[in-house]
Amino acid sequence: MSDVLIVGTVALDTIETPFGKVEKALGGSAAYAAFAASFFAKPSLISIVGKDFPKQYFRVLKKRGINLEGLKIDDKTFHWEGFYEYDMNEAKTIKTELNSIENFKVEIPEMHKDVRYVFLANINPEQQLEALRQINNPGLVVLDTMNFWINNKKEVLIDVIKKTDVLLLNDGEARQLFKTINLVKAANEALRLGPKAVIIKKGEHGALLFTKNKHFNAPGYPLEKIKDPTGCGDSFGGAFIGYLAKTKDLSEHKLRKAMIYGSIVASYNAEDFGLNKLKNLTVKDIEKRYKEFQSMREF
Amino acid sequence: MSDVLIVGTVALDTIETPFGKVEKALGGSAAYAAFAASFFAKPSLISIVGKDFPKQYFRVLKKRGINLEGLKIDDKTFHWEGFYEYDMNEAKTIKTELNSIENFKVEIPEMHKDVRYVFLANINPEQQLEALRQINNPGLVVLDTMNFWINNKKEVLIDVIKKTDVLLLNDGEARQLFKTINLVKAANEALRLGPKAVIIKKGEHGALLFTKNKHFNAPGYPLEKIKDPTGCGDSFGGAFIGYLAKTKDLSEHKLRKAMIYGSIVASYNAEDFGLNKLKNLTVKDIEKRYKEFQSMREF
Repeated sequence: MSDVLIVGTVALDTIETPFGKVEKALGGSAAYAAFAASFFAKPSLISIVGKDFPKQYFRVLKKRGINLEGLKIDDKTFHWEGFYEYDMNEAKTIKTELNSIENFKVEIPEMHKDVRYVFLANINPEQQLEALRQINNPGLVVLDTMNFWINNKKEVLIDVIKKTDVLLLNDGEARQLFKTINLVKAANEALRLGPKAVIIKKGEHGALLFTKNKHFNAPGYPLEKIKDPTGCGDSFGGAFIGYLAKTKDLSEHKLRKAMIYGSIVASYNAEDFGLNKLKNLTVKDIEKRYKEFQSMREF
Repeated sequence: MSDVLIVGTVALDTIETPFGKVEKALGGSAAYAAFAASFFAKPSLISIVGKDFPKQYFRVLKKRGINLEGLKIDDKTFHWEGFYEYDMNEAKTIKTELNSIENFKVEIPEMHKDVRYVFLANINPEQQLEALRQINNPGLVVLDTMNFWINNKKEVLIDVIKKTDVLLLNDGEARQLFKTINLVKAANEALRLGPKAVIIKKGEHGALLFTKNKHFNAPGYPLEKIKDPTGCGDSFGGAFIGYLAKTKDLSEHKLRKAMIYGSIVASYNAEDFGLNKLKNLTVKDIEKRYKEFQSMREF
């Protein structure tokens, strides 16, 4: 059995940034998250791709030890096309072809139903809820989403949040969901819905962890060579839950360390297009940057 | 003799935010900076006010032990009127009446010419340069500015930067001055001009310190009750240099601690209008929040 179950999208991404372009690169929230988690634990991926999904991409995922029992194949693969301008905090969408992901019926393979660590990566909250229904007794549920679902499926999303232990939002989403500019207020509102922890991701500015009476500030890593921020949030979430699954410890202390590992993998991810950087990343690289994160915070 | 000389503006500020309004409150870059510095050292203030400047404001400044030998009185006091919307990172100016500050001839009193710590707070860079000319042999020059001077006096500003040890910029100014979205690149360009350290202030997201081969990330303090961010950058700078003047140590380690003290005083400053919060602040309050900053960064 795998340590971490990741539900989300697998996509073909066509991305342009001021530093270049890739066409139909391997992407999607679950692909990025599973990749990031694989440096710490054994992830399994619950998603769907189409018959057009390149054989080579299956190999890329398997090479990182990602279990693909729960990856269905039907119709065409979800395709996202977008671009970034110089302010790379915001992706602009050109085209979203949902294809097979639209009517994806989540089915958790029997062998994964007792998994302890569940990451509901960004996907339709109805599909996230269905996944939770099929899992027996998860020890930790981490949830990510996006502005599209806040706009279009807010009620279902709130239902999922109520069943979640750790909620991930970026700052814009947090402000939108709780109708306040103030991130502390937004986080407190979120905690009131049930989660034990709320993480607000702020892109290059790092991430904030809010628990009942505490907060923690994880720095962003100052990148000189950012090329493509696609998947940074998903990588953050994947590394975060991967590290927790590895340590089997949900103390405040470990949540903080998990955020640092999330920030590290996300910072590497931005250094090249798609999953190119993470494909060749090593645990040694991660530990090297961990030391840098320590040294850039000491005072 | 005072420990820290602060050159900048003293103003009457009329400010509206979503949380209230004040009229002709004591403000200006040098007033905020001197106030913040006074918790750590003995500041003297070099600026000008008008004959309309309330007697009570002189008392408020003196009460904090701020030396006013270098505060000229002539004509009318500089008056700024502005407002903030819900995103309080950006002040919108309604009116700027320069009055006596416009033709302010900087004259450093003889007794202050041997000062070791100099903060050139935000004011016309020609006035900053003139101040430097009159100081004999400063041990540390810290410089702050604003977008207006980058737009209108860029060449003189670059001259001042070349004579500066620590340059403070906010993220927008750094990007504007060095024509890059990338803060790491901007900081490296700034270091190439001469300063030994560059600090990029990012409002609620904290501040970054760049020295030759190192960087440090000071967190913002997550504020639930922000009322008025006016003067936060000036308070940051004042507390920063005040702490360094107190310790008389310019090591990387102390620069980092100075940034944390800068962030602390700035975070308190935002909790009420004008200087209202700093008026009643104590060293004990500062040390309390210092412990919070430590605990919110441990991992």
